[in-house]
Amino acid sequence: MFRLIPLKGGLENIDGFYFQGVNRGAKPNDTPDTAFIRSDTLCDIEAVFTTNRFQAAPIKHYKKYPDDFKTNFLLINSKNANAMTGKEGIEDIEEIFRSLKKTLPQIENPVMSSTGVIGYRLDKENIVNSFSKFDFNAKDSDSAAKAIMTTDSFKKEIAFKVELENGKSFHIAAIAKGAGMINPAMATMLCFILTDVSVPKEDMKKLLFKHTQTTFNAISVDGDTSTNDTVMLLTNNLNENYDKEAFSEALREVMRNLALMIVKDGEGATKVVAFEVKGAKNDDEAKIIAKSLSNSLLVKTALFGEDPNWGRIASTIGASGCECDEEKLKIFYDDVLVYSKEKKEMDKETEEKAFKVMKKNSFKIVCDLGIAEGSFTAYGCDLSYEYVKINADYRT
Amino acid sequence: MFRLIPLKGGLENIDGFYFQGVNRGAKPNDTPDTAFIRSDTLCDIEAVFTTNRFQAAPIKHYKKYPDDFKTNFLLINSKNANAMTGKEGIEDIEEIFRSLKKTLPQIENPVMSSTGVIGYRLDKENIVNSFSKFDFNAKDSDSAAKAIMTTDSFKKEIAFKVELENGKSFHIAAIAKGAGMINPAMATMLCFILTDVSVPKEDMKKLLFKHTQTTFNAISVDGDTSTNDTVMLLTNNLNENYDKEAFSEALREVMRNLALMIVKDGEGATKVVAFEVKGAKNDDEAKIIAKSLSNSLLVKTALFGEDPNWGRIASTIGASGCECDEEKLKIFYDDVLVYSKEKKEMDKETEEKAFKVMKKNSFKIVCDLGIAEGSFTAYGCDLSYEYVKINADYRT
Repeated sequence: MFRLIPLKGGLENIDGFYFQGVNRGAKPNDTPDTAFIRSDTLCDIEAVFTTNRFQAAPIKHYKKYPDDFKTNFLLINSKNANAMTGKEGIEDIEEIFRSLKKTLPQIENPVMSSTGVIGYRLDKENIVNSFSKFDFNAKDSDSAAKAIMTTDSFKKEIAFKVELENGKSFHIAAIAKGAGMINPAMATMLCFILTDVSVPKEDMKKLLFKHTQTTFNAISVDGDTSTNDTVMLLTNNLNENYDKEAFSEALREVMRNLALMIVKDGEGATKVVAFEVKGAKNDDEAKIIAKSLSNSLLVKTALFGEDPNWGRIASTIGASGCECDEEKLKIFYDDVLVYSKEKKEMDKETEEKAFKVMKKNSFKIVCDLGIAEGSFTAYGCDLSYEYVKINADYRT
Repeated sequence: MFRLIPLKGGLENIDGFYFQGVNRGAKPNDTPDTAFIRSDTLCDIEAVFTTNRFQAAPIKHYKKYPDDFKTNFLLINSKNANAMTGKEGIEDIEEIFRSLKKTLPQIENPVMSSTGVIGYRLDKENIVNSFSKFDFNAKDSDSAAKAIMTTDSFKKEIAFKVELENGKSFHIAAIAKGAGMINPAMATMLCFILTDVSVPKEDMKKLLFKHTQTTFNAISVDGDTSTNDTVMLLTNNLNENYDKEAFSEALREVMRNLALMIVKDGEGATKVVAFEVKGAKNDDEAKIIAKSLSNSLLVKTALFGEDPNWGRIASTIGASGCECDEEKLKIFYDDVLVYSKEKKEMDKETEEKAFKVMKKNSFKIVCDLGIAEGSFTAYGCDLSYEYVKINADYRT
């Protein structure tokens, strides 16, 4: 048995790590746009990256290190994705780190992570100039979490103390960013998870990948897949109280909470909706259907319009290519049954109940296919005028 | 050699067919909502239907006829899709046709086609009452084309006389509807094509399917796939001047023109954009990429915002799962090269040129992957505030 105890703040809950965000001049009004995460000791690191074929330069730079490399420094910038920048994009990172090494000679195998507009070389000079603004001994999770934001409307951080049955404990904390370009078919956004506990390298890899599938890969804002999406897990191995089950659960909770924050912060979103698909032929088909629902423009606009139009749900299930049968299907809004074989047309009472559910900021749509045992839950949001506005204006 | 001569109007250009739209009370202000198409003689008929697993009742009713059945009557209604209505939905159609047979005993193997909201039984009484309003000898393509409209903002009809080298000729004409729920992975909307020329049954099937792939299946408004989409081709065999090549070309032109009208009428759309993908590994991959582009929310909102942000184009190509290489890729807006290996960042001049292209109501985005010879062109439109408004309010 173990307990997850939520802690205030974010990364500052992990000893031995230092972090801060500063302004290099890419965001207005001294808003942080560049952050570092530094460790006193060399850390084990594991990452899950975007499945986009045009992976950004920082991802290519990371992959040049050997599989089991250790690092003590992450540099993160917003406003420029350093994607589609070719060989030069990687060279820019190397040049930035050569400069940094003059100020901070102890850095080893530094890693960069970027988010922002695609197709522009990094503003190297500004980034290098920001080094003099950093206090490399700061523990300022707030400014770091803000520095990685793009269209995010709130910063995303979380931390847990994990208390084991024997009274011993360890810690895990993370910051993340993401609001648009959040897609189900991959890793999704930027997320940096720190822990003090010594996790076997093999568990880091397995657990990070496994939980990505049901957390960051289960959310969708607009169905697009960025060139830069990254989830990183670092441990400085300062704590020996490793318990696999407890760590796995804590990691999942960190990732699940941040994923839900990202959906909640979906560009222009007013509602978070869980699409719970069960009774599917298998889990894979359940996943395809749940993600189709969370990505359908017709479903998303009906959510915004608060219209309990289950026809759009049914039509999307039918279009998914997965096994389904209109005689076996049941659709619920929370616990209100809106469609079944026996109940095709909604009566006034059901419609009113369903309408009440849709008025909420958060609810679930349950689709029971009645075929076998496959299940998956995807998380999505509605599509509002605001989404169109944000994305029509993004660069200007 | 042959010539396609565009004719004014629509279906009235084909002898031996009669058609009209009337109001049964489902649309306000006496706007037509119910139409028939009738033939003096029995017609060969061929259809391509939606790939949605929840096919609507009229499609299931059609499929109960033997493969090579002949018909002389189509009944088409808007405002109710008769989808997800189970066995009763099919029985409703049979009951409607039993009633009609009392008024019009000569009907044989009548076919129904429906579009509108999913999940409600047909208003049978209103439909049957509309029979007394029909003039079964009318040739009123205008009211028929209007009767099948839902969120369409203009009616869609087209007609050609096809003149052969030997001076002989035949005719082809069609009406269609479609504005939302237009998806690339299937047949797409309602379209009724009439011809007088005697087409071998095998050619009807092959050509209708073939041209659906590059016309209706190449367009996208919102990536959703309806339960009712149908393209039908009827011939009354009154004309013996069949020429396969000429007929194929005429059929393709009819379908291509109507498909472009549908994109132009995309809900809330302000622009029609052709996504021309070439140099892909093969045609299938070109098709996947072209359709991903025409469906991407980030691409569609950038079109609305008139932002020549090729990064969203590149990111969508990378996310498609298809073979691509940032060193080989070239992206053009019409003939303005905005991305290539040598030209990563857009200079001011290029950006201004690209911006001018995007101001147009219609232009093309060309993606040359530089890998092999695969190509496909998809047609899409932008995503505006208006789209969200129409679809948030659809039922109310």
